Amino acid sequence: MLTSVFVIVPIASLFALFFAWWFFRQMMKSSEGTDDMKRIAAHVRKGASAYLKQQYKIVIIVFLVITVIFSILAYGLGVQNKWVPFAFITGGAFSGLAGFFGMKAATYASARVANACRTSLNGGLKLAFRSGAVMGLVVVGLVLLDISAWFLVLNHFIPEMDGGYKLMTITAIMLTFGMGASTQALFARVGGGIYTKAADVGADLVGKVEAGIPEDDPRNPATIADNVGDNVGDVAGMGADLFESFAASILATALLGAAAYIDNESVQLNAVLAPMLIAAVGTLLSIAGVFMVRTREGATQKDLLKSLGFGVNFSAFLIVIASFFILRFLNMPNYAGVWGSIVTGLLAGIAIGQSTEYFTASAYKPTKKIAESGESGPATVIISGIGTGLISAAVPLLIIVVGITLAFSFATGFDFTMSQLNKGLYGIGIAAVGMLSTLGITLATDAYGPIADNAGGNAEMCHLGEEVRKRTDALDSLGNTTAATGKGFAIGSAALTALALLASYFEEVRMMFVKFLDMPNELINGVPAIDAEFLDFVQHYQIHLMNPTVIAGIFLGVMSVFIFSGMTMNAVGRAAQKMVDEVRRQFKASPGIMEGTEEPDYARCVEISTRGAQKEMLLPSVIALFIPVVVGIVFGVPGIAGLLMGTISSGFALAIFMANAGGAWDNAKKYVEEGHHGGKGSDIHKATVIGDTVGDPFKDTSGPSLNILIKLMVMASVVTVGIAVSYPLIKPWLG
Amino acid sequence: MLTSVFVIVPIASLFALFFAWWFFRQMMKSSEGTDDMKRIAAHVRKGASAYLKQQYKIVIIVFLVITVIFSILAYGLGVQNKWVPFAFITGGAFSGLAGFFGMKAATYASARVANACRTSLNGGLKLAFRSGAVMGLVVVGLVLLDISAWFLVLNHFIPEMDGGYKLMTITAIMLTFGMGASTQALFARVGGGIYTKAADVGADLVGKVEAGIPEDDPRNPATIADNVGDNVGDVAGMGADLFESFAASILATALLGAAAYIDNESVQLNAVLAPMLIAAVGTLLSIAGVFMVRTREGATQKDLLKSLGFGVNFSAFLIVIASFFILRFLNMPNYAGVWGSIVTGLLAGIAIGQSTEYFTASAYKPTKKIAESGESGPATVIISGIGTGLISAAVPLLIIVVGITLAFSFATGFDFTMSQLNKGLYGIGIAAVGMLSTLGITLATDAYGPIADNAGGNAEMCHLGEEVRKRTDALDSLGNTTAATGKGFAIGSAALTALALLASYFEEVRMMFVKFLDMPNELINGVPAIDAEFLDFVQHYQIHLMNPTVIAGIFLGVMSVFIFSGMTMNAVGRAAQKMVDEVRRQFKASPGIMEGTEEPDYARCVEISTRGAQKEMLLPSVIALFIPVVVGIVFGVPGIAGLLMGTISSGFALAIFMANAGGAWDNAKKYVEEGHHGGKGSDIHKATVIGDTVGDPFKDTSGPSLNILIKLMVMASVVTVGIAVSYPLIKPWLG
Repeated sequence: MLTSVFVIVPIASLFALFFAWWFFRQMMKSSEGTDDMKRIAAHVRKGASAYLKQQYKIVIIVFLVITVIFSILAYGLGVQNKWVPFAFITGGAFSGLAGFFGMKAATYASARVANACRTSLNGGLKLAFRSGAVMGLVVVGLVLLDISAWFLVLNHFIPEMDGGYKLMTITAIMLTFGMGASTQALFARVGGGIYTKAADVGADLVGKVEAGIPEDDPRNPATIADNVGDNVGDVAGMGADLFESFAASILATALLGAAAYIDNESVQLNAVLAPMLIAAVGTLLSIAGVFMVRTREGATQKDLLKSLGFGVNFSAFLIVIASFFILRFLNMPNYAGVWGSIVTGLLAGIAIGQSTEYFTASAYKPTKKIAESGESGPATVIISGIGTGLISAAVPLLIIVVGITLAFSFATGFDFTMSQLNKGLYGIGIAAVGMLSTLGITLATDAYGPIADNAGGNAEMCHLGEEVRKRTDALDSLGNTTAATGKGFAIGSAALTALALLASYFEEVRMMFVKFLDMPNELINGVPAIDAEFLDFVQHYQIHLMNPTVIAGIFLGVMSVFIFSGMTMNAVGRAAQKMVDEVRRQFKASPGIMEGTEEPDYARCVEISTRGAQKEMLLPSVIALFIPVVVGIVFGVPGIAGLLMGTISSGFALAIFMANAGGAWDNAKKYVEEGHHGGKGSDIHKATVIGDTVGDPFKDTSGPSLNILIKLMVMASVVTVGIAVSYPLIKPWLG
Repeated sequence: MLTSVFVIVPIASLFALFFAWWFFRQMMKSSEGTDDMKRIAAHVRKGASAYLKQQYKIVIIVFLVITVIFSILAYGLGVQNKWVPFAFITGGAFSGLAGFFGMKAATYASARVANACRTSLNGGLKLAFRSGAVMGLVVVGLVLLDISAWFLVLNHFIPEMDGGYKLMTITAIMLTFGMGASTQALFARVGGGIYTKAADVGADLVGKVEAGIPEDDPRNPATIADNVGDNVGDVAGMGADLFESFAASILATALLGAAAYIDNESVQLNAVLAPMLIAAVGTLLSIAGVFMVRTREGATQKDLLKSLGFGVNFSAFLIVIASFFILRFLNMPNYAGVWGSIVTGLLAGIAIGQSTEYFTASAYKPTKKIAESGESGPATVIISGIGTGLISAAVPLLIIVVGITLAFSFATGFDFTMSQLNKGLYGIGIAAVGMLSTLGITLATDAYGPIADNAGGNAEMCHLGEEVRKRTDALDSLGNTTAATGKGFAIGSAALTALALLASYFEEVRMMFVKFLDMPNELINGVPAIDAEFLDFVQHYQIHLMNPTVIAGIFLGVMSVFIFSGMTMNAVGRAAQKMVDEVRRQFKASPGIMEGTEEPDYARCVEISTRGAQKEMLLPSVIALFIPVVVGIVFGVPGIAGLLMGTISSGFALAIFMANAGGAWDNAKKYVEEGHHGGKGSDIHKATVIGDTVGDPFKDTSGPSLNILIKLMVMASVVTVGIAVSYPLIKPWLG
């Protein structure tokens, strides 16, 4: 049944992996610089590896437990498909592999980038960016590889069925591959987020504030841990986050396509293939885009931003054109409309990035106001940062509202009859795919940031010349800007992906619903004609807003978001406190450290961060995994429906609030450091430093962790749908 | 058709108003103390009156505009009932009157309480508490008066109809009386909240931090404005907030009762009367409770808390018993179940209060931890306060979930068939009534706080003896505890009231739906049999979670909450900045102020706060009023349904987070001031002072304003339901 065009997907995957390997090899060939530079880099690399090893140990245990549970559900209770445990494992394994390779590349690159900056800015930029591209390409490559493999395997093993049920079944199974990626991402983002900020806050509180030594000073025992943190949080964590979004958006859209076009098998196949093909072609265009990024010596900050922007926009522009022809080639009905949905998604991603930049860059009013409010002390800096952050969430929320409304409307051809509902939901899904289609290069710009940051740290610690420092500073500063917009993009794509997942959750329920009614016996063998059964479904499950179990679910969703972010916030506080104690202890026990005659015990600080992160990430993670199961057992499908909407909506808003407030505080501090309001060392500077420290866990721990939460809760509901359908305590159907 | 038992409602109203008058007269008879004391009190009184006058000017303009709009909707477009403009006006006027009397009493009482404390603690407590009871009793008295009057008037003017439609019509009209109260409350809470914190933050930043003079020092020009703020924010604002909750919960429940029992006219009448009677009897019991509050000389803090608690618990315990007999007397079917719903509401209120206390009182771990985190500076105080605040929101959310589930289940007799849905919603409404039934006395404990606070301020400014100061301190400290639990209660009751309002919104839509379908021509004359039409209704309006307009609405609801609280937060920052500038100016221009030889220009500071508050409250208020209208026009009923659920759920969570974080910071500071972690003047103390300042707008401006937002958005949707039903741009019915 497969059309030959599908071959593009594995080909794009192999291309991506090949170029990742090639960029890696090129990078490894360049020199790592002086012995000092090598030594520092080795410290960071060792710390990062130690962290990853520790994390994977825990993750493997969690995966074993969940796999056993899934096996019981599938083979024991029969409320789940028998392929699920396997799809779950590969998803997790592939995501873990991507994190491993990405971080390897980043930690090998930093000293080499610093060294390249000794000769030229362009050399440094290219090396840093292409090392970041290793992460970007490994992520998209492995996602496409896993999707290709499973699609071929399941196509072979799932028997032919009438009425388009085969593709429904295949895509429904494949979606659970996302659950593995979600679980892996949970630990990478939450653990990495806690790690990086415990180290950062700890290093700053004692180093900068108490001892009065600058950032990245080699005398600070926590400085290596801080640099390791950039890698485990911003490289591995961000990578796992977007691995999940990329995979889940493609898979959810495939399932929604299978459901929407179930009445015509050839259209159905093309609707399933469309998201995969768009992601594949986007990947090829991303590789081309990476080669476009270059700059000239003496480039200004604006030039550098343009260089990166050119690569990203090049890929985005071409995918807009390419996707039109892909859809036309696939002969999709209303292909212009579906194309409109894709463009909507891409534009929404760009718009969210722009709004993030407006609210967090010191070139604009909001951040300037925050810096200005430092004149009446730290309290007003915090108040105005929180006020601005809260308001800033409104813009991306509005963008998402406009985005889903347009994506839905385009895909239905503005025909709002019930029979078009599923096509509209497919439109929302494919908008998410559009937004993420050029992930290969956008993720490269994200991973570039911490590499440049670490290169700067390496240069600082090894006392390289001022010219070199200036170059690494330029690269680092560029990384800060891309980090802010990257965060906005990650959250926006997480929200859109979560909505697509929510829509596919309802499809999964519908498949179970048929089983529950004891129509055809096999879950996977009997799927009702979608349109006709829709009202039955809504009536049966009463997922409407007058049902108190739906309302209860919404409240519980908001609750999950608040408790999860509160816990991650407190986790940073506690872990940072341990770091503070350790640094103080080292300064006291070995006075030689401050005199520069004795090397501090970096490894001990790395270990403290590692252990703190591992310990602190467990409880919030368990909560995130268990709430959907418990709500499903108590309130059934309506409760889950409410839970997920409550989580997605409030989680998205809180994540934006936290990311933007944190980013704005960071840049308000930098703005003062540039000489405004009295500059470095002034009282206003001190006030903004406090704002920046508060913002650290906002923007790098709790905020990004919410991206994971909103996707994971839906995924966990998808894979445990059998429980919610079959065994709710409070029967969800009022009637 | 009225049964004679209804007479209890106006009687309770007159009793409440009589005792309010009596307590006021008693208080006025006692001496105001020395000339100094009189002078200070007069300053505060003048400032408060000036503020109120200014605010009412703006409110009258807003009311004129809205009344014109309603008149056009009612008489021009015919999408609204013709009584609505009048009900709107009386609601607003009565709420305004209650605020006026309550604040008069409070501002006349403060010096008298200080004076009474010169002789005895018991005298001071009784005087302060009974002056607070003036506010409590005026609020409940005027609500009951308005309800009685409208019920009698409408009963006379609305013609008899078949099938229980007359009561549906009456209660639907009466509900719009709540819109007047909502609008009045919006300005009282938002304006008052901005006023009080602009003055407080401004006074602290210059007085305590820069000039190093203590709180309530007469040399601080902003100190009178600060005291005025307690009255306009905590007395008038809180009063208007709970006026609205009290009125709206009774009226919404009456409408839900009329809908739920429409098939049996005598049961229907009793279901409508039940919430009114319970509120009336609760009011009589509250008056009795007020008389129970007394203490003995040398009472400890615990004794004082017990005294207040005894009065409140006395009333609550008796209403539990009384309401059982009321329901039995009314011959309600399943009266034990409905009684269970009432008890659930009462218990939920108590539980939320308890959880507030746990998270904000320095006797417990969370607040102690925040104080402890001051050891690594202000940044960690902020981080742990926010972390704790976020987590603390989980408990009340869970309480509300359990509360609505139980209230719903009890009222349906655990029969979850469709025909019972309306009875369940009635159960949720009557739970809110139960929670608020003894408002007369709970509000007295709230209003008591600022009176005691002002008495303390008066004693401080007039340099009364240490013994007197000790007594006023004891009363003030008691007020801080009741303020925290009072806030929890206000938010909890707001959430439950908003949910009852949401349910009645759907009833209003159903009534419009009939009109829309051109069944019987008159909106008020034709109401469908509830059970039979329900599924039609849900199908027709598609208020389910697969409808993208519902999802868009939910996102917009969350957006409203974030933008509203961000704006109120920034408003405080800006207004406080102006106050800081003015105080600095006065200190500079008149050096005699600091030497104590020159009286500062208090009036100027009062004026600055007043003008700042009036200016800053307009934009957020306009947004709150317009968003429901705009969403109704664009997305129709499904959009509104989503909007309201998004607003209620995330607004409730954010309000709790802000109130608890603010309260915990406040008490962490006090805990340090008691001598822990180095006590007053230590670095840790300074760190916690910063936390406290950040917490001020959290707990007294943005948090409480959200109570209003969640109720007002529903009310605004209720009164503009005709627009959403008749003129949506995106047709909400998919099919």
